[in-house]
Amino acid sequence: MKALEFTDALRLRQDYPQPTPRPREALVKVRLAGICNTDLEILHGYMGFQGVLGHEFVGVVEAGSDPAWVGRRVVGEINCACGECPTCRAGRPSHCPERTTIGIGGRDGALAEYVLVPLANLHAVPPSVPDRQAVFAEPLAAALEILEQLHIRPTERVLVLGDGKLGLLAAQVLGLVGCDLLALGRHPEKLSILARRGIPVQSVDAPLPEPADVVVDCTGNAAGFATARRLVRPRGRLVLKSTFHGDNTVSLTSLVVDEVTLVGSRCGPFPPALRLLERGMVDVESMIECEYPIEEGVTAFARAAQPGALKVLVRP
Amino acid sequence: MKALEFTDALRLRQDYPQPTPRPREALVKVRLAGICNTDLEILHGYMGFQGVLGHEFVGVVEAGSDPAWVGRRVVGEINCACGECPTCRAGRPSHCPERTTIGIGGRDGALAEYVLVPLANLHAVPPSVPDRQAVFAEPLAAALEILEQLHIRPTERVLVLGDGKLGLLAAQVLGLVGCDLLALGRHPEKLSILARRGIPVQSVDAPLPEPADVVVDCTGNAAGFATARRLVRPRGRLVLKSTFHGDNTVSLTSLVVDEVTLVGSRCGPFPPALRLLERGMVDVESMIECEYPIEEGVTAFARAAQPGALKVLVRP
Repeated sequence: MKALEFTDALRLRQDYPQPTPRPREALVKVRLAGICNTDLEILHGYMGFQGVLGHEFVGVVEAGSDPAWVGRRVVGEINCACGECPTCRAGRPSHCPERTTIGIGGRDGALAEYVLVPLANLHAVPPSVPDRQAVFAEPLAAALEILEQLHIRPTERVLVLGDGKLGLLAAQVLGLVGCDLLALGRHPEKLSILARRGIPVQSVDAPLPEPADVVVDCTGNAAGFATARRLVRPRGRLVLKSTFHGDNTVSLTSLVVDEVTLVGSRCGPFPPALRLLERGMVDVESMIECEYPIEEGVTAFARAAQPGALKVLVRP
Repeated sequence: MKALEFTDALRLRQDYPQPTPRPREALVKVRLAGICNTDLEILHGYMGFQGVLGHEFVGVVEAGSDPAWVGRRVVGEINCACGECPTCRAGRPSHCPERTTIGIGGRDGALAEYVLVPLANLHAVPPSVPDRQAVFAEPLAAALEILEQLHIRPTERVLVLGDGKLGLLAAQVLGLVGCDLLALGRHPEKLSILARRGIPVQSVDAPLPEPADVVVDCTGNAAGFATARRLVRPRGRLVLKSTFHGDNTVSLTSLVVDEVTLVGSRCGPFPPALRLLERGMVDVESMIECEYPIEEGVTAFARAAQPGALKVLVRP
C-alpha cells in the first residue's frame, strides 16, 4: 500500500506492507488524514518515532474481530492502551504506561491507505459530518481536554496564545463557555476565523492585555510560553498545550511566589468533539489550508511546514 | 533597640532605630520569633533583601492607630498589601503587586524588639495557645495553603517529600483530611514526629513508592524536586512549597505528555492555623530545636543552618 514513512527522512512508500488486524483491532481504510504540528516535530526528532506518520484521520472499517464495526465510517483515538494495568483500570487509558500511539510511538499511523486501530478506540462519525470535518475530531478533542481538566468559569478572563491549528480550536471551544475570551496571534487571516465567530482577537505585537485568570499556551515555542507565563495573574492557571522537540523550562520559584497553577494538557475526549462537529458549533472548514493526494505527501508536509500554514489534508 | 540585621552579613544591632507606627499600623513588641529557611536563603541572596530579618513572630501590640488592638497578643500575616488595587479588591492581597513583606521585602522583620505590622494583618492569639506554639502560625498557615488551593480527596494517595519544618507541618495538615498519606525524608528523628501521630513515614533512600495522586515537594532543593516530579502519576498534582535562591526548572513537555498539574503554593490563611493550634491538632512543640536570646541571634542562625535543624526560636 502507499504510505508516508519517516525514517531518516520522509518518503512516499508505494509498497509498504498492508497491515493485518490483530485481535481487538480494526483495519481502517483511510479516507482522509491531517498533518499535525506533532508530525512536523517528529521530523525534527520528537519522540524518536520512525514509521508511518499520521494520527488525525477518518476512514471506513474494512475488517476486524467485531463485525458490527465493518463498513462504518470512523475516527479513532490515538492512544492504544493495554486495558489491564492500574492506570487503565483507574480510567486513564491515554496514560497507560504500556501504550502505543498511532503514528507517534510504537505503531504505524494513518498517512497511508490503511491503518490499524484498536476497536476500543473507534468512534462512529455522525452521517451529517463530512470527512473534511471529521478529520478534525482528534485535534478538537485535544482542545476539549482543556474543559475536561479545568473548570473555566463564565466570569473568568481567558487568553489563548497562538493562532495555529490547535490555538484556533482551543479558542473556539473556550468561546463556547461564555468566558471573557481574547485570542492572541500573529496572523490576521487566521485570527479572522475567530473574529467571524465573534471571538475578540488581537495581535501579539500590540500592547499586551492585563494578566488573566486563565492563559492557554498554544504557541508551540519557548518565546510564546514566556509571554503566556507573564500573562497569568497571581493564583491564575496556565494551560500547556504545546509539545515540541527541544525542551522548554519554567522558573519554579516564580510559580511558587505567584502561586500559579500549570496544567499540562494533551489528548482529549472524542464524543464531545463529534457532538460539536455534528451541531456545527466549531468552524473547522475555514481551517483547511489545502488537500493533497498521498502521492504528493512529501509536498504536503513541506506546505504544512510553511509558517502560518493551516491544516493540510492528505487523501490516500 | 536590638535587631538582627542582614546587609552584607548578619549582625546583631544594639542601636537599631525603634520604628514608629504609621496610620493603620501597629507597633508590636516581639515576644518570640522563629527562623525560617527563607531567612537562611536571604543570607544567600534570595529576594535581594537587606534589613531586619524575621517573619514568624508572636508579640503584644504596644501602640497603633486602633486602640482596640493595644495590649493584645498577636501574630501577623507577612504580606502588607495596598488594599486598593484590583488584585487586593479581588481578594488576593498576598499577591498585591505593591506589597511589602515583613522581613523579606521592603520592610523590616520581627527578629528585633519591635516590628511594625499593618492592622489588617493582625490576628489575636487564643489565650490557650502558648507563645512557643503561636510562633508557628505563619508556617502552619503556609502548610494550610495547600488545602486552600487543592481539593485533596480522602481517597487519594498523597506523598510529602522533605522532613524539614515545612514538610512536617504539611504532612500533619494533610494527615487531618483522611487521605492515604506517606511522608518521605532523610531524618529518622524528624520523621518520628509524624510517626508518633500515626502518619506513615519512610526514608527517601528506601525503594520509592508507586507514583501518587498528589505529591507535595517540601525538599527545598532541585534533586528533591526531581524525585517529587517522578513520583506524580499521570494527571496527578504536584504542589511546590519550596522557594530558594538559585532557580530550578522543570521539563514542560513532560508535564504535557503526563498531563501533570503543577501548583505553586506560598503563604496561607492564619485563622485556620490558629484554630488547629488551639485545638491541639498539630504538634509544633516537638518541632522546636532550641531557643536563643536575641543577643545570641547570630549563633541562632548558625544553628538553624545546620543540616537537619528544626525550628530555632529567638527571644528578643
